[in-house]
Amino acid sequence: MHHDSPILAGLIGSGTAPSLTPALHMEEGRRQGLTYVYRPIDLTALHLNVDDLPSVLQWAERLGFTAVNVTHPCKQAVIPLLDRIDPVAARVGAVNTVRFGPDGRTGFNTDTTGYERAFRAAIPTVRLGHVTQIGAGGAGAAVADALLRLGAQRLTIVDVDSSRAAELTDALAGRHGADVVAAGVDALPELLAACDGVVQCTPIGMAHHPGAPFDLGLLRQELWVSDVIYRPIETPLLRRARQIGCATLDGSGMAVFQAVDAFRIITGHAADAGRMTRHFQSLIAAE
Amino acid sequence: MHHDSPILAGLIGSGTAPSLTPALHMEEGRRQGLTYVYRPIDLTALHLNVDDLPSVLQWAERLGFTAVNVTHPCKQAVIPLLDRIDPVAARVGAVNTVRFGPDGRTGFNTDTTGYERAFRAAIPTVRLGHVTQIGAGGAGAAVADALLRLGAQRLTIVDVDSSRAAELTDALAGRHGADVVAAGVDALPELLAACDGVVQCTPIGMAHHPGAPFDLGLLRQELWVSDVIYRPIETPLLRRARQIGCATLDGSGMAVFQAVDAFRIITGHAADAGRMTRHFQSLIAAE
Repeated sequence: MHHDSPILAGLIGSGTAPSLTPALHMEEGRRQGLTYVYRPIDLTALHLNVDDLPSVLQWAERLGFTAVNVTHPCKQAVIPLLDRIDPVAARVGAVNTVRFGPDGRTGFNTDTTGYERAFRAAIPTVRLGHVTQIGAGGAGAAVADALLRLGAQRLTIVDVDSSRAAELTDALAGRHGADVVAAGVDALPELLAACDGVVQCTPIGMAHHPGAPFDLGLLRQELWVSDVIYRPIETPLLRRARQIGCATLDGSGMAVFQAVDAFRIITGHAADAGRMTRHFQSLIAAE
Repeated sequence: MHHDSPILAGLIGSGTAPSLTPALHMEEGRRQGLTYVYRPIDLTALHLNVDDLPSVLQWAERLGFTAVNVTHPCKQAVIPLLDRIDPVAARVGAVNTVRFGPDGRTGFNTDTTGYERAFRAAIPTVRLGHVTQIGAGGAGAAVADALLRLGAQRLTIVDVDSSRAAELTDALAGRHGADVVAAGVDALPELLAACDGVVQCTPIGMAHHPGAPFDLGLLRQELWVSDVIYRPIETPLLRRARQIGCATLDGSGMAVFQAVDAFRIITGHAADAGRMTRHFQSLIAAE
């Protein structure tokens, strides 16, 4: 009797215990008949920090892990610990998936490929002439790169921290040769009056950061609207956008498709994205 | 949708890569619908040794292992690293199963409980008035304790290393208050002429240690014969014993029942011993 090789993965980061990613991976593996265990490895609960990442990776490898996902605060710190890095991840400057193999450790970024795939699945026909992105943090960097791969001709990045916005736009302009500029929050009325779509990459709208990132009266039916938040899946921004008839992409897209892409890298099998999305929504609804 | 918690286990020791135990556990887990990964952790391949055992255990615990089996050369060294030890394991002075929990590490010895259960399953009605055991090493210690729990009234232990035999019999006599004595190899003709059964616990009879531990002409039909070797399952000793009609217990019994008992400790579910035995025999036959 022959079965697939067992697969062991983990999620390394601070505060990973409530993550839905382990459940998403294991349920999809179970549906596919794989022997697949995926463990949360919460540095905070273990009284470890990002300085311990070299040891965590080394021991995960020794104890038979197939691969790991890494999240905050390890996505940059993991890069010097790799043997090779996927070019897409290298451009983002962040890695969220590390596969162990006989030839060493390979890093990938499925946040950015996941956002790209979620976008293509949900709103494939929207215009990408000029996109406004709010938020230049870690999620923002992955999203901005995906928007440029998707074909955004102009990308304006707004952040309350103007130096962070400038740093990200400089890096993006340098590697994509695209028209990427930074702008202040006060430019939003003018930007939203003229652009094709807006992506929300800040924590504003989460259960513990209630509100909206700008005056929702600025929304127009012609805008497409994307939010990376998934707790709740419908933020005030998305609710208003749907009320006035905007095309929308909610945060479940990136959350699920980062897992879809990581599942393929880790297990070697394609995930059923529709099934994984339904599972994700049922988990969020049960919280 | 609710499923059992995922289970992650490993086998720590030198040269564990060819062990059948991971496959036995995972196949039984799969049959029971559990999400169960069991990894070989081969210290030799990792360029580690028994001095690294504290780190291996600590990291296994940190990275989410439910439990580990430990084997040569770690079964004694693991004891000072435990928070508590099962009384049966404490009497043997060796631990092969460590369960991690919120209240720390608990050690068990399923080699000895496994031999006991295999004996009860295979040859429950044989006489235990006087048993001769050949071999006073690690397997011998686990078997001797099991024989005394099974009710052996007199146990004679023979080893080419007479000081090792004396050390084991002293320890056994001290903790069981039983009639346990050491004897030299030259006493075997007299012992086998008078005792009820004989247990073979040396490597003699394995593929790379061919032969028999004594002149097989000494066997009598009235003797029961047990061998702990399982590669091959039928050693020259057992073949001759079966030819003349002795009751026998082959080495698959201890190998399978140590896994049956460990499966219950690790997963919280009873294993199907018959199914696990058939799987073990198919794996051995395929080698």
